[in-house]
Amino acid sequence: MSGAQPIENADRPGFLASALSAEGRFSDGASARRWLDERRRAQRCHVERIPFSDLRGWRFEPDSGDLTHESGHFFRVQGVHARCDFPAPLRFEQPIVNQPEIGVLGILAKRFDGVLHFLLQAKMEPGNIDLVQLSPTVQATRSNYTRVHGGKRPRYLDFFLQRGVNRVLVDQLQSEQGLFFLRKRNRNIIVETREDVPLHEDFHWLTLGQIKTLMQEPHTVNMDTRTVIAAVPLVAGGGEALAAGSPAHPAAGSFGEALIASTLAQDEGCQPIEAVLSWLTEIRACAEIDCQPCALNSVPGWERDAHELRRRDGRYFRVFGVEVESDAREVPGWTQPMVQPVETGIAAFVTKRIGGLLHFLVQARMEPGVWNLIELAPTVQWLPGVPTDEDQAPYLLEAVRTDGAGVVRHRSTQCEEGGRFYRYSTENLVVELDPADDRPAPANYTWVTLGQLNTLIRYGNHLNIEARSVLACLDVQG
Amino acid sequence: MSGAQPIENADRPGFLASALSAEGRFSDGASARRWLDERRRAQRCHVERIPFSDLRGWRFEPDSGDLTHESGHFFRVQGVHARCDFPAPLRFEQPIVNQPEIGVLGILAKRFDGVLHFLLQAKMEPGNIDLVQLSPTVQATRSNYTRVHGGKRPRYLDFFLQRGVNRVLVDQLQSEQGLFFLRKRNRNIIVETREDVPLHEDFHWLTLGQIKTLMQEPHTVNMDTRTVIAAVPLVAGGGEALAAGSPAHPAAGSFGEALIASTLAQDEGCQPIEAVLSWLTEIRACAEIDCQPCALNSVPGWERDAHELRRRDGRYFRVFGVEVESDAREVPGWTQPMVQPVETGIAAFVTKRIGGLLHFLVQARMEPGVWNLIELAPTVQWLPGVPTDEDQAPYLLEAVRTDGAGVVRHRSTQCEEGGRFYRYSTENLVVELDPADDRPAPANYTWVTLGQLNTLIRYGNHLNIEARSVLACLDVQG
Repeated sequence: MSGAQPIENADRPGFLASALSAEGRFSDGASARRWLDERRRAQRCHVERIPFSDLRGWRFEPDSGDLTHESGHFFRVQGVHARCDFPAPLRFEQPIVNQPEIGVLGILAKRFDGVLHFLLQAKMEPGNIDLVQLSPTVQATRSNYTRVHGGKRPRYLDFFLQRGVNRVLVDQLQSEQGLFFLRKRNRNIIVETREDVPLHEDFHWLTLGQIKTLMQEPHTVNMDTRTVIAAVPLVAGGGEALAAGSPAHPAAGSFGEALIASTLAQDEGCQPIEAVLSWLTEIRACAEIDCQPCALNSVPGWERDAHELRRRDGRYFRVFGVEVESDAREVPGWTQPMVQPVETGIAAFVTKRIGGLLHFLVQARMEPGVWNLIELAPTVQWLPGVPTDEDQAPYLLEAVRTDGAGVVRHRSTQCEEGGRFYRYSTENLVVELDPADDRPAPANYTWVTLGQLNTLIRYGNHLNIEARSVLACLDVQG
Repeated sequence: MSGAQPIENADRPGFLASALSAEGRFSDGASARRWLDERRRAQRCHVERIPFSDLRGWRFEPDSGDLTHESGHFFRVQGVHARCDFPAPLRFEQPIVNQPEIGVLGILAKRFDGVLHFLLQAKMEPGNIDLVQLSPTVQATRSNYTRVHGGKRPRYLDFFLQRGVNRVLVDQLQSEQGLFFLRKRNRNIIVETREDVPLHEDFHWLTLGQIKTLMQEPHTVNMDTRTVIAAVPLVAGGGEALAAGSPAHPAAGSFGEALIASTLAQDEGCQPIEAVLSWLTEIRACAEIDCQPCALNSVPGWERDAHELRRRDGRYFRVFGVEVESDAREVPGWTQPMVQPVETGIAAFVTKRIGGLLHFLVQARMEPGVWNLIELAPTVQWLPGVPTDEDQAPYLLEAVRTDGAGVVRHRSTQCEEGGRFYRYSTENLVVELDPADDRPAPANYTWVTLGQLNTLIRYGNHLNIEARSVLACLDVQG
């Protein structure tokens, strides 16, 4: 196990300069897009729904009813019973994906002309809308890279496993979707190399600015890329802001400048980080949560036929099998179960300038599968059919759905992880309220700066994937 | 739920001034000791081992064999099966205490003559050696303070539950003993008040310096106090060091000065915090761990008679019942199961000046019950009978056992939590190696500054209880 190398000149890794670069060494915005479209045409793949009985190697276990693979690897669809009293009495009784191994989501970085570029891959996942999206350099479960399925070893994996003289920019364990995965965590890692990197045609070097521009488009940058990019602060320190010619003005005019100032604000916000941590500790300590994994056949209210597992009311999500054919993956074809939420989700951060400084409104949210049971979510996180407080509409849901409640700073439709979710998309929104908007937030919401959110991300398992996915879309080029 | 109040003047909460105060407003060292001895005499209590059948309200469940309380509250003794490949192939098959609710370990603080004092309680716990030790102001499970057992409401609880205008100095969730508790976390909180506090005879205001002095003695400051005190940095910032007349000298002569300099060192150590986080992330991501709670009667190798549950070889630990009589607790008498490790444990931090700056050698350690499965432990953590790599003696165990390997900077015998453990004591050690000592550490060990350890403690579930307990004993008065 090689030790991590120190980050030299930690104040200036060059994130902001890369975020401000609308063009890279190898492409401008239009040609990056053309490259992806070309790879989409080049990769032949076909995905088709199949009955459970046509899944190869998968079966429903006789005793538990769990859907498992005969190897004992990959993942298991089982059940979960969870009850909590926060923020209101809620009960979850549902299937859930149990995939205990920690996967690697790794992006390789390298400086060209002094500007950080990130190596993304045009990768097919069966559940992706448009099938091929931009994924991290390496996106691999342990089953992938120990080759349980007998396929090829993922390209560039050794940059992450044997880091040698390369420099680690980001390295964190983070939770995945807590409504669908049981305590699943992935390793989010960015390694900067100075070595020569042989380039395969499915890979392309992009600046942070180019990646952010591509995130404005639907179904282009996949969820695994977004969670890793969310770990990259827009600016690493005051020195970096000065060097990039963007000194922070707390009362900055443009939204991009306001993002930079908010990223640099650790203790200048409306409360210090200690108060944020105390608020979260109090909620975690006081909530009564009972979360018990269980056999799939002990989940009431769900039914299964030859083709799918679904909730009796037809809402929330369903589970079914697919057959995949592809000439661009480690193995030419396979079958697997997938999860499909029935409707589109919404994930929205509401922001507001407080004392001139941009703040983000986060909520503490209980989800049965997140590592810490309660993690921080975007202001609005909504998926029809999810168990919720029926007496009360989700706070600010209507406000973000309706234009006019604030200025929409970002809006895009993004796909969730296409290896497990079938065409599950979420509308990502960032809305800025008028500074004079003084509606009071419920006790399970609090205002924080972007710098404080970055600190919480750094120490892992504080922000859920939906929050990180929206933050990844923030763009200082605006 | 009241919001946490901002810490005013966060750079100078006054930790160092309190740590340097050998006398408080209400006692010097000798009279504080006399007060505790007097309370020990005043509190009448008696603890006696009893057969399981004499436990009132407790029974072994017929199906699972779990030892449970008829109310469904308090805790459950069940089983756990765990296997891991880190740092060597290990298998745990043992009973474990499942107590899902999060308790409050709260210390009330107040300034007298400008110096922070902490309100400790002379409290009887049935498993304590010497029965009465110094506990936090409030030490309560939810069952205590919702009064499931029908007793009195703990004194001073409202300072923590309804904080009003009081100031939160520390507020964290931390893991408890991972060999004995299944994913148990407690809330470690310090609240500073300016209000008048009516003083009960079992409570006493002490400076940090007085508490540290009492930690030099055996069985005096209980584990719950030690974990909360471990969250208090010896110095909060350079300004505080200057104000206390102790500016940090990296190459300081005395061990106390070296502790202050190391506390102030975040990025001046032999590696930045990013490298420490990456090292830990890599270990957590690469370890294969399977940890499954199970029924007590499915644990092989353990046997039970009318009086105790024990491992067949008689080592590691046993579980039995006790009858408690006391005139100083919320209820006059009760019975309960307790856990007794058979031998004394060792928890030792090995330290060394690297480039003149004091560093601590931490290990990443897997324990079946800690929240993150792998957390940071002291250099040496040893309890006879614990499943371990039989091919290899624990690293540096012999070195810390043998005088002469380094300078012993702290040595004390401390009791573990007396509400669950029966007379379980651990030898706490801090040893300083010669700077020229260049033996290489295994890959699951790394050198960090005290400031980096404080940062990791702040974000919760990074350091295990054994590590925090030793750090609590560090004393700048030396």
